[in-house]
Amino acid sequence: MSNVIPKPSVPAPDIVRCAYMELVVTDLAASREFYVDLLGLHVTEEDENAIYLRSFEEFIHHNLVLRKGPVAAVAAFSYRVRTPEDVDAAEAYYRELGCRTERRRDGFVKGIGDSVRVEDPLGFPYEFFYEVEHVERLHMRYDLYSAGELVRLDHFNQVTPDVPRGRKYLEDLGFRVSEDIKDSEGTTYAAWMHRKQTVHDTALTGGNGPRMHHVAFSTHEKHNIIQICDKMGALRISDRIERGPGRHGVSNAFYLYILDPDGHRVEIYTQDYYTGDPDNPTITWDVHDNQRRDWWGNPVVPSWYTEASLVLDLDGNPQPVIERTDASELEVTIGADGFSYTRPGDENGAYHGMASKGFKLGTQV
Amino acid sequence: MSNVIPKPSVPAPDIVRCAYMELVVTDLAASREFYVDLLGLHVTEEDENAIYLRSFEEFIHHNLVLRKGPVAAVAAFSYRVRTPEDVDAAEAYYRELGCRTERRRDGFVKGIGDSVRVEDPLGFPYEFFYEVEHVERLHMRYDLYSAGELVRLDHFNQVTPDVPRGRKYLEDLGFRVSEDIKDSEGTTYAAWMHRKQTVHDTALTGGNGPRMHHVAFSTHEKHNIIQICDKMGALRISDRIERGPGRHGVSNAFYLYILDPDGHRVEIYTQDYYTGDPDNPTITWDVHDNQRRDWWGNPVVPSWYTEASLVLDLDGNPQPVIERTDASELEVTIGADGFSYTRPGDENGAYHGMASKGFKLGTQV
Amino acid sequence: MSNVIPKPSVPAPDIVRCAYMELVVTDLAASREFYVDLLGLHVTEEDENAIYLRSFEEFIHHNLVLRKGPVAAVAAFSYRVRTPEDVDAAEAYYRELGCRTERRRDGFVKGIGDSVRVEDPLGFPYEFFYEVEHVERLHMRYDLYSAGELVRLDHFNQVTPDVPRGRKYLEDLGFRVSEDIKDSEGTTYAAWMHRKQTVHDTALTGGNGPRMHHVAFSTHEKHNIIQICDKMGALRISDRIERGPGRHGVSNAFYLYILDPDGHRVEIYTQDYYTGDPDNPTITWDVHDNQRRDWWGNPVVPSWYTEASLVLDLDGNPQPVIERTDASELEVTIGADGFSYTRPGDENGAYHGMASKGFKLGTQV
Amino acid sequence: MSNVIPKPSVPAPDIVRCAYMELVVTDLAASREFYVDLLGLHVTEEDENAIYLRSFEEFIHHNLVLRKGPVAAVAAFSYRVRTPEDVDAAEAYYRELGCRTERRRDGFVKGIGDSVRVEDPLGFPYEFFYEVEHVERLHMRYDLYSAGELVRLDHFNQVTPDVPRGRKYLEDLGFRVSEDIKDSEGTTYAAWMHRKQTVHDTALTGGNGPRMHHVAFSTHEKHNIIQICDKMGALRISDRIERGPGRHGVSNAFYLYILDPDGHRVEIYTQDYYTGDPDNPTITWDVHDNQRRDWWGNPVVPSWYTEASLVLDLDGNPQPVIERTDASELEVTIGADGFSYTRPGDENGAYHGMASKGFKLGTQV
Ligand SMILES: [Ca+2]
Ligand SMILES: [Fe+2]
Ligand SMILES: [Fe+2]
Ligand SMILES: [Fe+2]
Ligand SMILES: [Fe+2]
Repeated sequence: MSNVIPKPSVPAPDIVRCAYMELVVTDLAASREFYVDLLGLHVTEEDENAIYLRSFEEFIHHNLVLRKGPVAAVAAFSYRVRTPEDVDAAEAYYRELGCRTERRRDGFVKGIGDSVRVEDPLGFPYEFFYEVEHVERLHMRYDLYSAGELVRLDHFNQVTPDVPRGRKYLEDLGFRVSEDIKDSEGTTYAAWMHRKQTVHDTALTGGNGPRMHHVAFSTHEKHNIIQICDKMGALRISDRIERGPGRHGVSNAFYLYILDPDGHRVEIYTQDYYTGDPDNPTITWDVHDNQRRDWWGNPVVPSWYTEASLVLDLDGNPQPVIERTDASELEVTIGADGFSYTRPGDENGAYHGMASKGFKLGTQV
Repeated sequence: MSNVIPKPSVPAPDIVRCAYMELVVTDLAASREFYVDLLGLHVTEEDENAIYLRSFEEFIHHNLVLRKGPVAAVAAFSYRVRTPEDVDAAEAYYRELGCRTERRRDGFVKGIGDSVRVEDPLGFPYEFFYEVEHVERLHMRYDLYSAGELVRLDHFNQVTPDVPRGRKYLEDLGFRVSEDIKDSEGTTYAAWMHRKQTVHDTALTGGNGPRMHHVAFSTHEKHNIIQICDKMGALRISDRIERGPGRHGVSNAFYLYILDPDGHRVEIYTQDYYTGDPDNPTITWDVHDNQRRDWWGNPVVPSWYTEASLVLDLDGNPQPVIERTDASELEVTIGADGFSYTRPGDENGAYHGMASKGFKLGTQV
Repeated sequence: MSNVIPKPSVPAPDIVRCAYMELVVTDLAASREFYVDLLGLHVTEEDENAIYLRSFEEFIHHNLVLRKGPVAAVAAFSYRVRTPEDVDAAEAYYRELGCRTERRRDGFVKGIGDSVRVEDPLGFPYEFFYEVEHVERLHMRYDLYSAGELVRLDHFNQVTPDVPRGRKYLEDLGFRVSEDIKDSEGTTYAAWMHRKQTVHDTALTGGNGPRMHHVAFSTHEKHNIIQICDKMGALRISDRIERGPGRHGVSNAFYLYILDPDGHRVEIYTQDYYTGDPDNPTITWDVHDNQRRDWWGNPVVPSWYTEASLVLDLDGNPQPVIERTDASELEVTIGADGFSYTRPGDENGAYHGMASKGFKLGTQV
Repeated sequence: MSNVIPKPSVPAPDIVRCAYMELVVTDLAASREFYVDLLGLHVTEEDENAIYLRSFEEFIHHNLVLRKGPVAAVAAFSYRVRTPEDVDAAEAYYRELGCRTERRRDGFVKGIGDSVRVEDPLGFPYEFFYEVEHVERLHMRYDLYSAGELVRLDHFNQVTPDVPRGRKYLEDLGFRVSEDIKDSEGTTYAAWMHRKQTVHDTALTGGNGPRMHHVAFSTHEKHNIIQICDKMGALRISDRIERGPGRHGVSNAFYLYILDPDGHRVEIYTQDYYTGDPDNPTITWDVHDNQRRDWWGNPVVPSWYTEASLVLDLDGNPQPVIERTDASELEVTIGADGFSYTRPGDENGAYHGMASKGFKLGTQV
């Protein structure tokens, strides 16, 4: 490929983990209802224009910023780096890549100090920071613990047209691939990549991009996720449950996907596995394996493949969306020509031209 | 209606609870793998032709009999009555109804004494017994407790064309309705009926019948049900997970539907509510309420509405299946003319002509 | 025994279940904090003098009344009966027993109609009612569901000096014994007795009485109980956790005992078993079996044996407490001469003169 | 202190995580029953003299080696390092410390390659390796998943007389302190230290040492731990449950301590928190805080403080045990002069001269 992203000569910043996402929302009150009243994230601070939220076990200022704006989008995927100097390293790294960067010694948002934001080679607004305000870690504040408590930010998920191109770029940046989805012809449909010792800090999902597929928070146990569904039923917003709950094939986590008032997708996630060893085995899934995305073979709703959030450039304008030209996971699995199997080689476990479990793709796609 | 089932002049037997189902299976070894190896039911005894199984907390001989036979079907829905004399009462009751009955002082199956079997007015093979062999109650045998342990038989579910007709008959027999599904034109789609103090011992589902829709076992907690899904994934039989897991609207229970090797449907079920008060309120659901069958609005797969098991007459021949002429729940909700809503009166929560969550009915139905 | 309570010639009322307890508390605000803020019971109504509380799945007006008064005590153990006429039956039954009774057509408390209260032969204030105000059943209001949600009133527990005497009286009243604790010399230390299809509606614990040992609410799952502990830790009131959590031997339930601001003991309880069959086997435990009260052999704190709440007569005065003369369970198991075993006949599993797990009885008893 | 362990001039090896413990057991069959039949660890391989076991999510050869020997003891606390060269680094590091080391290119046990074992400055047999045989990661083998499944090795816990001395040595080796227990006079009673991103890979507990306090495995959820208790009850070995289950103050994890046939202590542990950020806050607990070791204030059984396993030198002989001279946590909290509180400054929440919850220290200590 002529469009390979070269590896800079300067060292990559030492990224610790995904730390927070800045989301632009169009109705701050409606978003507050979703993230605070429904999901129970804890308000570190808030004003007319922004709400800073953190999860139960977090000790840095926030894991999510909701900022009021005219167009629903993602303003930043923010990573914490190991040292103050790693912010310099990040700036130099992206400059050598020819990316636009912006450095703010006082940070772009409250609670965060010296930061650099970049328009990365895939078109995503990435941020790197070390300095951060410490706040009360609520991890033993069981007086505040809701039945569906979100205890950590777990990961981001990004949509990009060319997954191998993005993967190579993120591997250069220091991420390691824990799992991926491929087919026998060499197409990669998705890849999961981590810095901290879980399955991922971010994942690349093949599709029209750059777009944000979802942001994921984790719970302690599976029943916490079920409670979120039950509560959404009680509030008569079950139509905002998009997919799940289920058990992922990839990552082995128990999951749920829900949609915020702007259509930003949030995953609730629990119990993936330790990946911290240097030779942690990468797991490759066949795109036709019907258990890859749901271990129980439950169908992936088409919107999950097609819908995603816009991302902003450093001026706050939405990045243009580029179409994926590689094969689409939706089409090769549940579309008109799609094919999936429960057991390789067993015709009784094969599904053709429809979603699994007897559901056919609707006309709305 | 001219075909109303009259109430006998003699008293109804005092039914305690649903006690066991006798299932005819075509491959005993395959069924053993399903009910014993996969689901962990406990073998009370077995021979070449039959396996007697019980749940973790049961103290009577069995909750399920698997009997080898040429055609997969249900041979008996068996209820325990309060006294030996209630078996006489049952016999007299059905004789007055003009039903064929058969009395066996030594029982029809091992472990059960004096019993009467009848071909009931709806065409179902019902059994009533009091005498039973007590066996070890395993309820504290945590050394035998599997991660997906089935602790009780919870209920039966029967498909019958005319639900109000069946409901009246079962109410006369002493059952009380806990919940039902109706529409504004007066059609009843399903009814849940109990003797013990749970939501049901049996339910009537509108459809072509008499057929057996499912038999349900309960677990202690929700994670036990999730484990059964996870195990079916690991065994690469996720295509035998038909529907769920989910939270029911009706009954408020957490549920899962899976299919045995003959296609007999088994529900795994937990945490409905107490119904033992004499004035326990009946809950009526609107058939168009998209949360009635799944509180989270997840789609009901079409096969769940259309597929069911044959039932046998007292000679062991399958009962002919009579078509439902009332409106079909599938068609009024997810078929071409179907309509469902998440919030009554809110067009944004309405689904037309497709299943919820973007899935349309496939051609296979 | 000369003091056997005779069986009346009139029929016993048909008791459905334990329905509510009326508790006298000395500081209504402190009690509200405990039952509402900590435990999450739902307020049906309240005024300056009383708070009416119900559990998540309840549809009658309340399961607990907190009434302000000068002496912490129990004003009523209240049972629901099957029909309005059963209130008459109860009145006649206790009159024949020579007990003082008081009938109030409008009820003794809000939300309850025609009721009779009695000073029963054991000295307890029992109430029987049928008429009751129905309120919203919150069983699907997951928007109100706390992480430690109490979903049902499960049972009462009463302290009485002569357990066999009380047991005979309650059996005459229609209760059936599910489990008991005895020794090889015929002493009965406790008995569990039910009307609804669980292990008990009330239990008799041998000791100085009449006193109220505890009132028990159930949760859906075990983690809900753990959350209550965690929350009490977070609120720095872990010294109000008296015993547990643990797994009972008797009843097989997962349990916790906590103390309200007046020292009234509340049990949180989940997952006992079905007892509705007429021949449900009674389980007898050996008082020396160290797993009878805690299946894991964790020690029973001495206060659990010795402390209990006063009960009131119909004038609102505390009933005098009569000493138990039979052997004390505390003394035969964990006192100076006590003896317990993990495995009968295995000296390695025996404990002498101390509580299990290396704890000796303190001087505070 | 004159006995401070100096920091070597050569770099410390880059330790990834605690990887396995080699335990000497006196009856291999009895130990197999405990670790395999009771706890469900998975056998990678075994012969007459040794059994190699791994947890559900592990991909390296083993997390536990049971080796038959004459004296119950620990032969190795083994850590994985990041690269093959880190084994060289470890060897050089301990040589500079003047410690005895032994290098084996083929490893000391099956499945592990080039390793170095050392007698560390505290007297513990530490091992460092990189090379290891990869085996099937069972993390999705839910067909093998038991109700009490152990999914990861979590940490070691070591008893040493001088905690600050040991802590300084481990900090030099690259460990970071997540939590500790101190008093106002500066005595340190215990410290928790990590390399991977959990609360610890090992902890130092003040006491007579070098001895092994426990080895800990984690489960997915809290109910898995409860099941282990329930199963031990069913097997009538509840006297091998030493302490718990409970919620730790330190680490916030849900825990249980049980004893293997030789008295080796095993902790079962779940749900501590992420510690991977460079400035992860250290939490210091007051030794008199009665919730520090059990958040619910349940008493710590005296044996938990006093009993521990011997450790071996590189010749396989037990290391001599040196007495702690600093204050004993047992004595300052639950001994005759002990003092603990639930709420600092609130006399009503204070315990003097006994364990919390009314239990006094027995004569057996
Ligand atoms: Ca509540
Ligand atoms: Fe995700
Ligand atoms: Fe059902
Ligand atoms: Fe109780
Ligand atoms: Fe530990």
